[in-house]
Amino acid sequence: MLSRLARVQPKCQQFVSFSTSKSAAAAPTVKLWIDGQAVESKTTDFVELTNPATNEVIGLVPNATQAEMQAAVDSAKNAFNTWKNTSPLTRQQCMFKLQALIKRDMKKLAESITIEQGKTLPDAEGDVNRGLQVVEHACSVPSLLMGETLPNVSRDMDTHSYRVPLGVTAGICPFNFPAMIPLWMFPVALATGNTMVIKPSEQDPGAAQLLVELAKEAGVPDGCVNIIHGQHSAVNFICDNPDIKAISFVGGDAAGKHIYERGAKNGKRVQSNMGAKNHGVIMADANKEQTLNQLTAAAFGAAGQRCMALTTAVLVGEARAWLPELVEKAKNLKVNAGWKPDTDIGPLISKQSKARVLRLIESARKEGANIALDGSNITVPGFENGNFVGPTILAGVKPNMTCYK
Amino acid sequence: MLSRLARVQPKCQQFVSFSTSKSAAAAPTVKLWIDGQAVESKTTDFVELTNPATNEVIGLVPNATQAEMQAAVDSAKNAFNTWKNTSPLTRQQCMFKLQALIKRDMKKLAESITIEQGKTLPDAEGDVNRGLQVVEHACSVPSLLMGETLPNVSRDMDTHSYRVPLGVTAGICPFNFPAMIPLWMFPVALATGNTMVIKPSEQDPGAAQLLVELAKEAGVPDGCVNIIHGQHSAVNFICDNPDIKAISFVGGDAAGKHIYERGAKNGKRVQSNMGAKNHGVIMADANKEQTLNQLTAAAFGAAGQRCMALTTAVLVGEARAWLPELVEKAKNLKVNAGWKPDTDIGPLISKQSKARVLRLIESARKEGANIALDGSNITVPGFENGNFVGPTILAGVKPNMTCYK
Amino acid sequence: MLSRLARVQPKCQQFVSFSTSKSAAAAPTVKLWIDGQAVESKTTDFVELTNPATNEVIGLVPNATQAEMQAAVDSAKNAFNTWKNTSPLTRQQCMFKLQALIKRDMKKLAESITIEQGKTLPDAEGDVNRGLQVVEHACSVPSLLMGETLPNVSRDMDTHSYRVPLGVTAGICPFNFPAMIPLWMFPVALATGNTMVIKPSEQDPGAAQLLVELAKEAGVPDGCVNIIHGQHSAVNFICDNPDIKAISFVGGDAAGKHIYERGAKNGKRVQSNMGAKNHGVIMADANKEQTLNQLTAAAFGAAGQRCMALTTAVLVGEARAWLPELVEKAKNLKVNAGWKPDTDIGPLISKQSKARVLRLIESARKEGANIALDGSNITVPGFENGNFVGPTILAGVKPNMTCYK
Amino acid sequence: MLSRLARVQPKCQQFVSFSTSKSAAAAPTVKLWIDGQAVESKTTDFVELTNPATNEVIGLVPNATQAEMQAAVDSAKNAFNTWKNTSPLTRQQCMFKLQALIKRDMKKLAESITIEQGKTLPDAEGDVNRGLQVVEHACSVPSLLMGETLPNVSRDMDTHSYRVPLGVTAGICPFNFPAMIPLWMFPVALATGNTMVIKPSEQDPGAAQLLVELAKEAGVPDGCVNIIHGQHSAVNFICDNPDIKAISFVGGDAAGKHIYERGAKNGKRVQSNMGAKNHGVIMADANKEQTLNQLTAAAFGAAGQRCMALTTAVLVGEARAWLPELVEKAKNLKVNAGWKPDTDIGPLISKQSKARVLRLIESARKEGANIALDGSNITVPGFENGNFVGPTILAGVKPNMTCYK
Repeated sequence: MLSRLARVQPKCQQFVSFSTSKSAAAAPTVKLWIDGQAVESKTTDFVELTNPATNEVIGLVPNATQAEMQAAVDSAKNAFNTWKNTSPLTRQQCMFKLQALIKRDMKKLAESITIEQGKTLPDAEGDVNRGLQVVEHACSVPSLLMGETLPNVSRDMDTHSYRVPLGVTAGICPFNFPAMIPLWMFPVALATGNTMVIKPSEQDPGAAQLLVELAKEAGVPDGCVNIIHGQHSAVNFICDNPDIKAISFVGGDAAGKHIYERGAKNGKRVQSNMGAKNHGVIMADANKEQTLNQLTAAAFGAAGQRCMALTTAVLVGEARAWLPELVEKAKNLKVNAGWKPDTDIGPLISKQSKARVLRLIESARKEGANIALDGSNITVPGFENGNFVGPTILAGVKPNMTCYK
Repeated sequence: MLSRLARVQPKCQQFVSFSTSKSAAAAPTVKLWIDGQAVESKTTDFVELTNPATNEVIGLVPNATQAEMQAAVDSAKNAFNTWKNTSPLTRQQCMFKLQALIKRDMKKLAESITIEQGKTLPDAEGDVNRGLQVVEHACSVPSLLMGETLPNVSRDMDTHSYRVPLGVTAGICPFNFPAMIPLWMFPVALATGNTMVIKPSEQDPGAAQLLVELAKEAGVPDGCVNIIHGQHSAVNFICDNPDIKAISFVGGDAAGKHIYERGAKNGKRVQSNMGAKNHGVIMADANKEQTLNQLTAAAFGAAGQRCMALTTAVLVGEARAWLPELVEKAKNLKVNAGWKPDTDIGPLISKQSKARVLRLIESARKEGANIALDGSNITVPGFENGNFVGPTILAGVKPNMTCYK
Repeated sequence: MLSRLARVQPKCQQFVSFSTSKSAAAAPTVKLWIDGQAVESKTTDFVELTNPATNEVIGLVPNATQAEMQAAVDSAKNAFNTWKNTSPLTRQQCMFKLQALIKRDMKKLAESITIEQGKTLPDAEGDVNRGLQVVEHACSVPSLLMGETLPNVSRDMDTHSYRVPLGVTAGICPFNFPAMIPLWMFPVALATGNTMVIKPSEQDPGAAQLLVELAKEAGVPDGCVNIIHGQHSAVNFICDNPDIKAISFVGGDAAGKHIYERGAKNGKRVQSNMGAKNHGVIMADANKEQTLNQLTAAAFGAAGQRCMALTTAVLVGEARAWLPELVEKAKNLKVNAGWKPDTDIGPLISKQSKARVLRLIESARKEGANIALDGSNITVPGFENGNFVGPTILAGVKPNMTCYK
Repeated sequence: MLSRLARVQPKCQQFVSFSTSKSAAAAPTVKLWIDGQAVESKTTDFVELTNPATNEVIGLVPNATQAEMQAAVDSAKNAFNTWKNTSPLTRQQCMFKLQALIKRDMKKLAESITIEQGKTLPDAEGDVNRGLQVVEHACSVPSLLMGETLPNVSRDMDTHSYRVPLGVTAGICPFNFPAMIPLWMFPVALATGNTMVIKPSEQDPGAAQLLVELAKEAGVPDGCVNIIHGQHSAVNFICDNPDIKAISFVGGDAAGKHIYERGAKNGKRVQSNMGAKNHGVIMADANKEQTLNQLTAAAFGAAGQRCMALTTAVLVGEARAWLPELVEKAKNLKVNAGWKPDTDIGPLISKQSKARVLRLIESARKEGANIALDGSNITVPGFENGNFVGPTILAGVKPNMTCYK
């Protein structure tokens, strides 16, 4: 076990270059990626990047200046002039190389995710793998891009249709899947002949940075994919910039609605993938052991921060009697830093997140729910400052309680 | 009831023009359909067309001469030169009209089938309807015919693909679905720009004749679809004729294998849809009432002459106890001429068919099967000469018995 | 000629029921279409519907009340509950019937368009025909709606995708193609299982009304398609109503941008097809006769009110010398009421439209363009009050002139 | 130059293991590939494998015994039981690896082709590359394998279609593209879940052997692809074996027709891609320099042994005057062993091939053609025994001459 930890940590230090000092001043700045180069922002406005297991500051994420964001768009616009005319087969070759490079650097990517986002290393590999499948799908681009023909539709008239790229596109990413979501976005944009500006979450931008470097290594020309960092003003820049033709967003509801409205107001195509609150209905004729195991994984995996996380289970009929066993299983889940071996549940992304969860548990208690399992006061030895909440099960929840809404 | 019979029979006489005389000499000849015209064959070699419920001879089907069959192919070849260049939208308009005309003449088509093939009028309408769906599908031909484009696959090279017609095609049809099978064949051939020569079954060629007349009324130019009549020599003519580029066959195994081999030997594309022997497995947790009803319909519908007829039911576990109820349901099925109201089971297609079934029942008895219900000696009042066999259920059948094979 | 006019006009009276009196008070009201019934609006706020060739008031179009518009949406929402569960094959049957009915009523539809919109009868039939092709395309819906399968994508996991309807949709239509645009919208919505509320142009709502009546005759259940009338407040109602899931718009730029923004703000999917200004480049090696004929048709057909009208021709090199011949051809175009035989150019849609065109010609003159042909002062005998402008050709136009912009 | 030769030859020796001795007895035997292993045939019947540039015997190709061929089919049949149930995504991963391995071993593959088939090294890389594109296409298999869904087609009936593998398939390959054709066949068979038995040409089996070894390295399980060697009896074995469900053939007309007929007779699906005789029509308004260069490449590339080789050029009008320049260009083509630098034209595949070409040139002379350029008597220093024929241009050819047919 020790050897694995030893192996992991030095590597992590290599690529996220985080300081072990607790002084934010000493933390390295995260770079922008413009025109195929890492660029130091000239802003003085930074957001702290923390390791959620320790709350150490491991980096400083710049709120990029308007000029820097415009430079990223200009680079993407300029690259589009050439990239749109490359053969789909050339772009396919880049995707073949990119998928191989992601496989090569799987561990490095996973470690970056664990350090910045908190999830366990196996979960982090899953994060990369679910995105990798989209890169592999983008390898089908010559088949997927085919248009249609129909000769002789009327006198002297044949029809031919083509699928053509739009131009500069933009991606706005959430914190919960720092590799998967960028990989849903830029490989498809590139394969179809578009170029892109990505804004990763300021809470875990490291994986996106590693991925665009791999794109460069895979032969994607400079400028085809760029990274800007920032918060609200970066989002609004993307919504308003006239050279950006389409926006892909994954994240929370409030941001999603804002981006859909503001992007549309500026004539853009906006794809806004917002939140979900999944319910599982458990019938008494289900296989109990299998069901409880899957329920445990779906509810507590990635600390419940997946957009498809199963937050609500409705036990029907005799299945209601399974609650004690479910509690027992949940109790056995191991809470620890994500890079520790055998960890089941890592920390939440931030102190704010943890505080919000604790408030919800407290409100549930006050509103009369039965706290079947309470993870509020957990302490993880060696990581006393981390954003940990243990597995928590609330029973007797009513739809009008704060914790349900 | 009487009124319905009165209504049906005169109509039938109108369109199949059958003689009520028992003298075959007086029966009308069935015509060829060449270049958009009904053509009297010059052959002296005819096959008798009988009404299976009465065994009266209602027509004489010619074995067309080589010259007549060649004339049909020449007509199709000549028509192809123009038809292949029509717009897919023009061909679509013909299909719109054809589907409307088939709906208009539904009863006329069904009556032709009942008189020549024996099945009940509702079954005959089903026969037409299942073919009509293919005509309706052929109305999608502009979408279905689209080829593909991919520009810029390499320097100065774009690709465009088109779906182009082959030329003259041929269809060889079985007796059991005299409307459905021709409708699987010629509408798709026509819609895709091909032309066709059809050989209906000599046992019930009337529906095919009515259908090609409707195609003409729908605006399909003369020569695009032709009908030849005959038996083995007509089949071989089709397999060998160098102007026929593709063959579609539906029917029995021996003929299908022969056509596949002989057509392929002549470099043709052959689609050979041969026989099936469906088994149904009945589990004890099935809904009994619904299962037995469906089983009865699937086994005895169309006198068991559907290629997908469910000839073998395997009752599992407690479902074995359902046999007496199945027998009871089968006993209640009404055996009569297909055009009689409330008929469940019409006659078999021919005396030979009936004799074969009786032999199989007899062999089952000798080999030790339990004849749970025996339809061998049924007599249908008013139709004592018809090819009727009542519903028959054999239990305790082993795979090595003649009746199973 | 007289006989044709005689034939046309009484028919027109029958279906648009317009009064020959010049008193607007006597003009009939146009009805809403809610839940399969023509409904008299309770509003007191009406817009005059005029015949552009005479400027007679032939109807009064209501600005529907909020309650009436809500009733239309409620009807569509209620109908959706059943319609979404119909078989695609059932919906296909409705489309088969609808296309046949439109063909049956072609002349009636064209006459409605000519009376209300002004275009010639052949142009009006073209208007219907271009929409009819979409109904014919909607007959392919079983093929077009197919989802995808891929079994065994991972352990114990198969994927099946389905295309499912959204719910209530809305269509907002322009004046220039009063049949084609509604036919682009509601047949596709219906065939795919959605229901629809249509707002035709208040300047020519008659064709849409005839078409939804045909949909009812074709078997589309009441409530599946509804018509509301109105102007800005109807547009905003559609953009804001929470039960409307998607909007299809065809029309001018200002309205289109407004609808795209306001619909998106309310979370809807918006398809906004806005204006175009087509340029034709004429090279000297073109076939002169054919080119000039096509140019004349493209520029002056439908009085230049098509969205794809060719308003600007760039004559290159020696082709510049063709201008006099182009003028000569344009001079020969016959300007008259759309229902008069041999008319080439009918009136513009409204007095406002005519005034705007006259202002542009005047501005061109002032800004130095060469008025090669001036249709400003045309008088059409018998139709002195109509919105006629003769064919006009401006040469020497610069991009900065008002008439170009 | 010398250094390149030195570099090439030792490598070639490594992988084709050819003897420099002229004694056939000393030549190594080529192995079968059964169940993932190289297998020494027990036959005593061998065909000599020669280097076409030297006519040295470099290997002995076995005519595999019936038992060996059956073992290959048994292995493929057995492997199919597992392979058909693998996920399409698993099979896609094999294709990703296979395409990378082919790129890695490009030079090794090309050298094998040059030594055995004679074509130049750049042509040999082209041979591999044209096949590699099919492997890359096979990486799209999850998209390409998708079936279709349509729910609710009638009461209680949904439809789902799946694309399922057939079973054991077979590929029969020609000598002219020893890498491309096997790569057209087995990667697609494998990606779609089938297994395969390949019979390469006995004249150049080395590339196929290298490719199936790469498939194994790429993770394709043993038995999924097998190689048998042989001539007529191997072809007939494939046509007749009941476990082989489909045959893909590329090659000459006589063999192709035989296989189509014999395979079909045995109920198999046969894809038979036979010969072509391409004509190029050269118009006088073509760009002369570009046309003559392309003509030279298309006619003489790969020594004219491509199935799409442009063997006949029809010079129209003034283009007829270009013949002397075409001759001049052809004269400058360098004839030499394929692995020599700057070679334009390598040897023909065999002595028989060379003799046939010389006979045709002689017949052309006798029948009155104008031998504008005669490559009959070429001698290549150092390769006096090779199957070389220089570029030859016949003018004044009539369709009835032997050399045209």
